[in-house]
Amino acid sequence: MVADRNIRLIIAYDGTDFNGWQRQKHDITIQGEIEKCLARMTNHEIMLHGAGRTDAGVHAEGMVANFFTTSRITCSAFLKGLNSMLPYAIRVLAADEVSPDFHARFSAAGKHYEYHLYTGKVMPPLARLYSLHVPIPLDLPSMHESLKILLGTHDFSTFENAGSREKDKPSRKGAIRTITTAQIEETTPDHLIVTIIGEGFLRHMVRNIVGTLLEVGMGKRSIEEFREALLAKNRNAGGATAPPHGLKLRKVLYGDTEQLQ
Amino acid sequence: MVADRNIRLIIAYDGTDFNGWQRQKHDITIQGEIEKCLARMTNHEIMLHGAGRTDAGVHAEGMVANFFTTSRITCSAFLKGLNSMLPYAIRVLAADEVSPDFHARFSAAGKHYEYHLYTGKVMPPLARLYSLHVPIPLDLPSMHESLKILLGTHDFSTFENAGSREKDKPSRKGAIRTITTAQIEETTPDHLIVTIIGEGFLRHMVRNIVGTLLEVGMGKRSIEEFREALLAKNRNAGGATAPPHGLKLRKVLYGDTEQLQ
Repeated sequence: MVADRNIRLIIAYDGTDFNGWQRQKHDITIQGEIEKCLARMTNHEIMLHGAGRTDAGVHAEGMVANFFTTSRITCSAFLKGLNSMLPYAIRVLAADEVSPDFHARFSAAGKHYEYHLYTGKVMPPLARLYSLHVPIPLDLPSMHESLKILLGTHDFSTFENAGSREKDKPSRKGAIRTITTAQIEETTPDHLIVTIIGEGFLRHMVRNIVGTLLEVGMGKRSIEEFREALLAKNRNAGGATAPPHGLKLRKVLYGDTEQLQ
Repeated sequence: MVADRNIRLIIAYDGTDFNGWQRQKHDITIQGEIEKCLARMTNHEIMLHGAGRTDAGVHAEGMVANFFTTSRITCSAFLKGLNSMLPYAIRVLAADEVSPDFHARFSAAGKHYEYHLYTGKVMPPLARLYSLHVPIPLDLPSMHESLKILLGTHDFSTFENAGSREKDKPSRKGAIRTITTAQIEETTPDHLIVTIIGEGFLRHMVRNIVGTLLEVGMGKRSIEEFREALLAKNRNAGGATAPPHGLKLRKVLYGDTEQLQ
């Protein structure tokens, strides 16, 4: 039998208790958990292709993944079956059959990330797993101006951690990426959301941007110094990597014909 | 030394991993954890008086409690010290010194509770610990009308679980309580909040009201039948007890002179 059906999943997860997206031999991961359930349902090994890898502790509201199968199980039965087997920290929001050309990663046109911050004095317990606590007044206008510097196409080496690309295989693109949205807003008092949407991201790129941005917010770095850091194309010019739990993959973007509901 | 200082705390907690508020010999509870920290700080045993007891799994944004101490530790040092020792699931939001007459429970004029519901098909992982999943369209107008029936002073025996009061000590009030606010609203799509504010509550009262209310929402019970259930003054006339994790103590209310910020 040929694995002729290509099934696309939209997946949400609380990354707190997982060792990231990517399958690992000895650790519990999102990809690993879903693949195990799919293998049980289809009676064959499944390779789940995610739109990207999220690090341990990072959350997702709209991760996209696809897999090929020989199974005749309907998409709604995949949805129900997976949600009945998976832990509640992982939910499949939608399942549909797509063209064999669709690949969650290669077909993706972009990604929408959010980084959540809480700036009040004491961290509310119900937000502690999903927001970074920064109990310091932040200079939002300067942070907003700094984010604007990222818009467009740049070499983002300053915000790229080691291990980002296979260094042996020189990539045509290198560390050049395009950011289309970069902003910060206060949604409710003391709750800030940094939104970054782009065509592609390097390893830890959003967390490295946020770590550097926080230095601007605290007055430790000027807007001009933020710009210089980007232009330095050197990881040492950037700030620390912000912790994973504030980060959330909101959505993966696709071209018009492949866009999800 | 006389324990002459009366310190009031405002406390928030994620009830998921605790066996409720009340101190217990062999279980981890909110009261127990805070008392342990206070004993370490003051070098004497502390009896923390809470405004009420919340069940295992119930959350709080504004629990109030007070304790007497001989210690000269300042309120701001109590706040910092407790937050440095307590798990992040429990946070002290404020500490201040109050008159010796203040008692978190006896001085309380009322309590403000919220019960959170999610009615979408698939439960978002990040809300799973703080909302009850009811993947069924609910009749909100009928639920709202039913809640109005609770307003005012009634005998709430229908919504009282066994163990509510010490049955041997007949209370003057019995099961008579006064509800001042009872409403349901959709805050964001599929997220509903039932708000109940009253002068006092019986054991499991909010959860029993919500369990019965859900039957109205699902069309299993009419508004008239909801009214008859209340008038029956009999637990058997009510619906099931809604699970604890959707419930949150928002605030404890006090008279003007004792109201907290």
